[in-house]
Amino acid sequence: MTDYQAFHVELNDHIAHVQINRPDKVNAMNAAFWREIVEIFQWVDDTEAVRVVVLSGAGKHFSAGIDLGLLASVASELGKDTGRNARALRRKILDMQASFNAVDHCRKPVLAAVQGYCIGGAIDLIAACDMRYAAADAHFSIKEVDMGMAADVGTLQRLPRIIGDGILRELAYTGRKVDAEEARSIGLVNRVYPDAASLLEGVFSIAREIAAKSPIAVSGTKTMIGYMRDHSIADGLEYIATWNAAMLQSTDLRVAMAASMSKQTPQFDD
Amino acid sequence: MTDYQAFHVELNDHIAHVQINRPDKVNAMNAAFWREIVEIFQWVDDTEAVRVVVLSGAGKHFSAGIDLGLLASVASELGKDTGRNARALRRKILDMQASFNAVDHCRKPVLAAVQGYCIGGAIDLIAACDMRYAAADAHFSIKEVDMGMAADVGTLQRLPRIIGDGILRELAYTGRKVDAEEARSIGLVNRVYPDAASLLEGVFSIAREIAAKSPIAVSGTKTMIGYMRDHSIADGLEYIATWNAAMLQSTDLRVAMAASMSKQTPQFDD
Amino acid sequence: MTDYQAFHVELNDHIAHVQINRPDKVNAMNAAFWREIVEIFQWVDDTEAVRVVVLSGAGKHFSAGIDLGLLASVASELGKDTGRNARALRRKILDMQASFNAVDHCRKPVLAAVQGYCIGGAIDLIAACDMRYAAADAHFSIKEVDMGMAADVGTLQRLPRIIGDGILRELAYTGRKVDAEEARSIGLVNRVYPDAASLLEGVFSIAREIAAKSPIAVSGTKTMIGYMRDHSIADGLEYIATWNAAMLQSTDLRVAMAASMSKQTPQFDD
Amino acid sequence: MTDYQAFHVELNDHIAHVQINRPDKVNAMNAAFWREIVEIFQWVDDTEAVRVVVLSGAGKHFSAGIDLGLLASVASELGKDTGRNARALRRKILDMQASFNAVDHCRKPVLAAVQGYCIGGAIDLIAACDMRYAAADAHFSIKEVDMGMAADVGTLQRLPRIIGDGILRELAYTGRKVDAEEARSIGLVNRVYPDAASLLEGVFSIAREIAAKSPIAVSGTKTMIGYMRDHSIADGLEYIATWNAAMLQSTDLRVAMAASMSKQTPQFDD
Amino acid sequence: MTDYQAFHVELNDHIAHVQINRPDKVNAMNAAFWREIVEIFQWVDDTEAVRVVVLSGAGKHFSAGIDLGLLASVASELGKDTGRNARALRRKILDMQASFNAVDHCRKPVLAAVQGYCIGGAIDLIAACDMRYAAADAHFSIKEVDMGMAADVGTLQRLPRIIGDGILRELAYTGRKVDAEEARSIGLVNRVYPDAASLLEGVFSIAREIAAKSPIAVSGTKTMIGYMRDHSIADGLEYIATWNAAMLQSTDLRVAMAASMSKQTPQFDD
Amino acid sequence: MTDYQAFHVELNDHIAHVQINRPDKVNAMNAAFWREIVEIFQWVDDTEAVRVVVLSGAGKHFSAGIDLGLLASVASELGKDTGRNARALRRKILDMQASFNAVDHCRKPVLAAVQGYCIGGAIDLIAACDMRYAAADAHFSIKEVDMGMAADVGTLQRLPRIIGDGILRELAYTGRKVDAEEARSIGLVNRVYPDAASLLEGVFSIAREIAAKSPIAVSGTKTMIGYMRDHSIADGLEYIATWNAAMLQSTDLRVAMAASMSKQTPQFDD
Repeated sequence: MTDYQAFHVELNDHIAHVQINRPDKVNAMNAAFWREIVEIFQWVDDTEAVRVVVLSGAGKHFSAGIDLGLLASVASELGKDTGRNARALRRKILDMQASFNAVDHCRKPVLAAVQGYCIGGAIDLIAACDMRYAAADAHFSIKEVDMGMAADVGTLQRLPRIIGDGILRELAYTGRKVDAEEARSIGLVNRVYPDAASLLEGVFSIAREIAAKSPIAVSGTKTMIGYMRDHSIADGLEYIATWNAAMLQSTDLRVAMAASMSKQTPQFDD
Repeated sequence: MTDYQAFHVELNDHIAHVQINRPDKVNAMNAAFWREIVEIFQWVDDTEAVRVVVLSGAGKHFSAGIDLGLLASVASELGKDTGRNARALRRKILDMQASFNAVDHCRKPVLAAVQGYCIGGAIDLIAACDMRYAAADAHFSIKEVDMGMAADVGTLQRLPRIIGDGILRELAYTGRKVDAEEARSIGLVNRVYPDAASLLEGVFSIAREIAAKSPIAVSGTKTMIGYMRDHSIADGLEYIATWNAAMLQSTDLRVAMAASMSKQTPQFDD
Repeated sequence: MTDYQAFHVELNDHIAHVQINRPDKVNAMNAAFWREIVEIFQWVDDTEAVRVVVLSGAGKHFSAGIDLGLLASVASELGKDTGRNARALRRKILDMQASFNAVDHCRKPVLAAVQGYCIGGAIDLIAACDMRYAAADAHFSIKEVDMGMAADVGTLQRLPRIIGDGILRELAYTGRKVDAEEARSIGLVNRVYPDAASLLEGVFSIAREIAAKSPIAVSGTKTMIGYMRDHSIADGLEYIATWNAAMLQSTDLRVAMAASMSKQTPQFDD
Repeated sequence: MTDYQAFHVELNDHIAHVQINRPDKVNAMNAAFWREIVEIFQWVDDTEAVRVVVLSGAGKHFSAGIDLGLLASVASELGKDTGRNARALRRKILDMQASFNAVDHCRKPVLAAVQGYCIGGAIDLIAACDMRYAAADAHFSIKEVDMGMAADVGTLQRLPRIIGDGILRELAYTGRKVDAEEARSIGLVNRVYPDAASLLEGVFSIAREIAAKSPIAVSGTKTMIGYMRDHSIADGLEYIATWNAAMLQSTDLRVAMAASMSKQTPQFDD
Repeated sequence: MTDYQAFHVELNDHIAHVQINRPDKVNAMNAAFWREIVEIFQWVDDTEAVRVVVLSGAGKHFSAGIDLGLLASVASELGKDTGRNARALRRKILDMQASFNAVDHCRKPVLAAVQGYCIGGAIDLIAACDMRYAAADAHFSIKEVDMGMAADVGTLQRLPRIIGDGILRELAYTGRKVDAEEARSIGLVNRVYPDAASLLEGVFSIAREIAAKSPIAVSGTKTMIGYMRDHSIADGLEYIATWNAAMLQSTDLRVAMAASMSKQTPQFDD
Repeated sequence: MTDYQAFHVELNDHIAHVQINRPDKVNAMNAAFWREIVEIFQWVDDTEAVRVVVLSGAGKHFSAGIDLGLLASVASELGKDTGRNARALRRKILDMQASFNAVDHCRKPVLAAVQGYCIGGAIDLIAACDMRYAAADAHFSIKEVDMGMAADVGTLQRLPRIIGDGILRELAYTGRKVDAEEARSIGLVNRVYPDAASLLEGVFSIAREIAAKSPIAVSGTKTMIGYMRDHSIADGLEYIATWNAAMLQSTDLRVAMAASMSKQTPQFDD
């Protein structure tokens, strides 16, 4: 594994475990974090041996969001002209968004495992994942409003496709805490586990199931669900028809069919 | 009633009962199925005496999805050139999608009544219906991933407008079974009935309610809700204003108003 | 406060209380209502001292929807030519839609507090609000279908972004009553309070929380969530980057940061 | 005719002549201009006796664009907080855009007749008209780039639907002058007349032709062409089908048919 | 060749010649026309031996548009209820649109050859073709406005993608005649030939060129250009990448490459 | 200047001259080309001293398009499974598209100067530039159809926004040559110069004009015109209002105003 300053990454049995690894800083997202996450998910995308990703945080908490030191350093670079400051800020925000786009656009499913704090930028991050699972002690807060700003790296863009409009607005305007059980009931997380250990165990178990499927089938499915967030049903139907025009010629269908008939577990190439 | 190979169809009291009728084959969707469903829903659309449709499956199960013999026959038609195969497959998929588009685009509400298995292509089918109701023994599975392929006749296109993104991805990547109660809690079905008999009774009761309303009002409502899946709020508002510019001149408003004042049940023309 | 025929409006502590005030008419929406609501929300938008709005109905019920006398008067203006009638009706509907667009497009959050009846046009109205809260005795009905028409001032356009597609269709085709608890479980309201008094108390408490936040942050958040109903994720990310290019240069970030460090409540300018 | 500070307006034979009337200021667009143009086009839209509009400028020039005094007054209202300034500027720009949206959204065709200067804001204005005609001495310049800003009241939004992308970029980046003949060859104007007198004569002649047509047909046509700037062909087809569902029931078709058979000029109601 | 009432169809050397064949009726579009054109283009789409289509009109004129008898027959079917009439008219218009959609959506290029009159519905038809060529005596008129209606089978939807907005509006509001040379200068036709004979010769010569290309390449190109009328550049890029993922595996690339190296004409399978 | 294998790059007076520099290979686009163009335009975007780019080709020709050796190497990497080949090809195409997206998305205007051949991939490249200028000997060909494939790195996506639909289809289906004068008449290039020397002189003269403008104004203008290719007019108006909310607070407006009043040339910061 490559060494990272803000992450610990392992690959076993087709599952990449990407762990935010600054537990003494509550996994706050510093400059290294934003840069390295792009490299890591580029590697995930390029490495067909990786079929699924588990994203977690080391220590007691998932993440407290953006590192305040990073914010201060951005502020310190601003000059006197409002227009040129705006130009620089806009590019900076687009850069940070690109870090989480790398997670969203990655062709392999990403499962977030959340315990403890999941706050501010951490919500932006998990909103870019495919599925979210929580330990019972997790709690969530769209904290940006308390920093005097609108969230700008994905929460307000991706959460509306995940949870209901009415409750999202309440959470985003007030920044109030949401516990694991409420998170599940509003669809923010799929399941709640009693503690961090059983959370990881549960999430890895789902990841293993996915890793055993045809990678061609899984990545086509992910691409299509992602596509449907922003396209019409007619567009989606035409797109999958074009996609499957190639993919139905893959050997994976025959492998799956043969395994199904012989009641055996199919083995798919990467 | 016209005779069909894969369906049994009846029309009583403005309600068309369209029943998949291959119980010994778990109502698997064969070539006749895909062709006849288009004809049936064309008839539904053309026949103003039909005001609402109940779609069900004969026997113990709703449907086990696409008939594997049909898949094999498609595969056997492929030749040596990948490009021309892709061309043929793309057209084949678009053709099959058209079968379920006929359900979706039909101007009358379609209520699916699901008992037993509802698997693979059967999910694509019920996703094209207006509402879904289940017996307690129903279970659902987005089975395509286990056939080595991404679902391509509607599940991945229409379900994102029906159930939450997070749970959809879990179900689509793993193909795991969902029982009736979970289906209700995630919004896939509107209500669960204890058994198949009470299911049909309940669904017909809702169908009768709808059949008693103004067909002009119901079909305008369906068109608009369908439209909103893919259009902006501003577009939707402009569209309904244009639609109602004609429809508010219908006699149905006066009929409804008169009935309301005289506390009688209004009688609407087809 | 300006005097209104159909409303009572108060502004205290940055919270505007806009109350439909025709309790003897079950707060039915007459001509004055449709005209005055535009003026009121124009004032809300223009007055930076208003940071949040509570919308309620005086008396036992929130509102019974459009005033039937108004409908009759529209009908009486129609002439002999169907085309010119359509032209007039289309403009009339667009005008009425504009009344609720004023609520939706208002830059400050609008919280609806609903007790008793919330029927027909009243559903269109609360669908244009940010969040909805209910007293236990509230009940909701998409009543337009019983008037022989498709709802045309917002219900069918905005509710699909708020509640699930399957249940929406059932409610819109049948017009059946939904009580407060079901309304909460389908996401139509965020919370149910035991009675009208605790409802208002609860909603004002949430309003006070929002009023204490940076108005720059809150209005950016509202604009962005509204925007995401109709735009792609990529568009949303680019838009917030452009928006925050200016807004991150506001003093509110420093005020928030300083308050956070000194553990004090921040005080934001209007 | 109502008296206006910045305009002279006349209505004859179903044609409204709206003339910018500040010839001594080169018809620069002052505060009165921006306010009154909304009122005038509201009147156009509300008055069915108006079937077509000719928009011209009094004196030697069409218009030199926005009045610099107005710009200075906007600048003088800005305060110390960049965020609140941005909020105010954004609203101010949206307000000014609304003035030209009133021209664009007006249901009756608007024909611009341009002589002499047509610069800066004047390009934004004519881009909101249906058709543009020029005298030989006309010249055009997207002048905003020389004021240190991107054009923000319509030029960059509407011109791409009117002239080619390559030439638009050259004109917008350099601000160079375009004479009448080049304007015609790139599609910015439909025809060039030798001088201002023949220009007005020619434009009124086209206006008279349009005024003699069925207002139902003309306004349906305008609505549809405007709609197609931003919608798919499929959406457009569905929209016109819904529109004409009412409009083909108008008497105008019979009037037109009867006139055609009797070789007479049809007379349509407003 | 199948016999048609309104068409004469021939297939030679991969080129289908589809000729409107009611010269004594100025090729007016009667009920048979609207029905048969769907069958013919379904056959074109299904028959890979057809690689390109030439669409022409027998006799002196291309076509005078919709048959007035057909219009009268539609009118005669209307009843007393404006709402139900609207319902029927909307379906009728959608049906007629489907006839020209069959031309537009056909996977093979369609070249229109126009001499003499091309009026009303005939403009709708050629707007659904890929390219248009004219004889010197051709003239064009968007005649619907003179029938008291907005064009509703494609002209107003497709022409804005073909000719400029400014000139389109003039033509659609006034219905004035456009001769062949003006048609060429505004981009409505690609080239003008001196007479009907040289027109057909020229168009068949272009058709032969296209028929000699790889059908895989040509149909991918048509699909993509059609797609771009309604989709973003980013969507188009993603779509062609998915499309070519299959098509670049076709043998046609090798055939083309080999022919290019040996300086011979490549021979492609259907 | 950094050294490149496929390019020569110079920066003088705010103008970057990016020259394809493989004249002995007719500037064919090899692997280095596709990689380096991304780096170069990243540098352009990051370096505010660059205000405008001139893109040209060294030697007699602009470029003959993609290097055939590169195509062969891609083909040689394909394996036995059609599905995995499709996956690899799709990613490869997306990568190559990203190279030209870097040109399109660059915030500074890019002016292409074309002499001699401009074929295949070279059309894709110039379609991603802002403006195109040609020497009299230039000729253009959408050559991909003769390679048995649909163009997939931008021609079919971007040209429809630049030239008319009818002529584009003819050129794309036949691959026929277009000379400089025809290129100008269809809007593909803005101007034709007699030879390569006067071409470069002319293009640099336009570039100098642009470089002298406010970079804030020019880049806002480019962003907006690019945005309008894919967004509605309403979206564009809202976007520029938000953009200018910050940018109108720039000092460039005051610099421009002061210069205008003193009749001097304004000097803008980078």
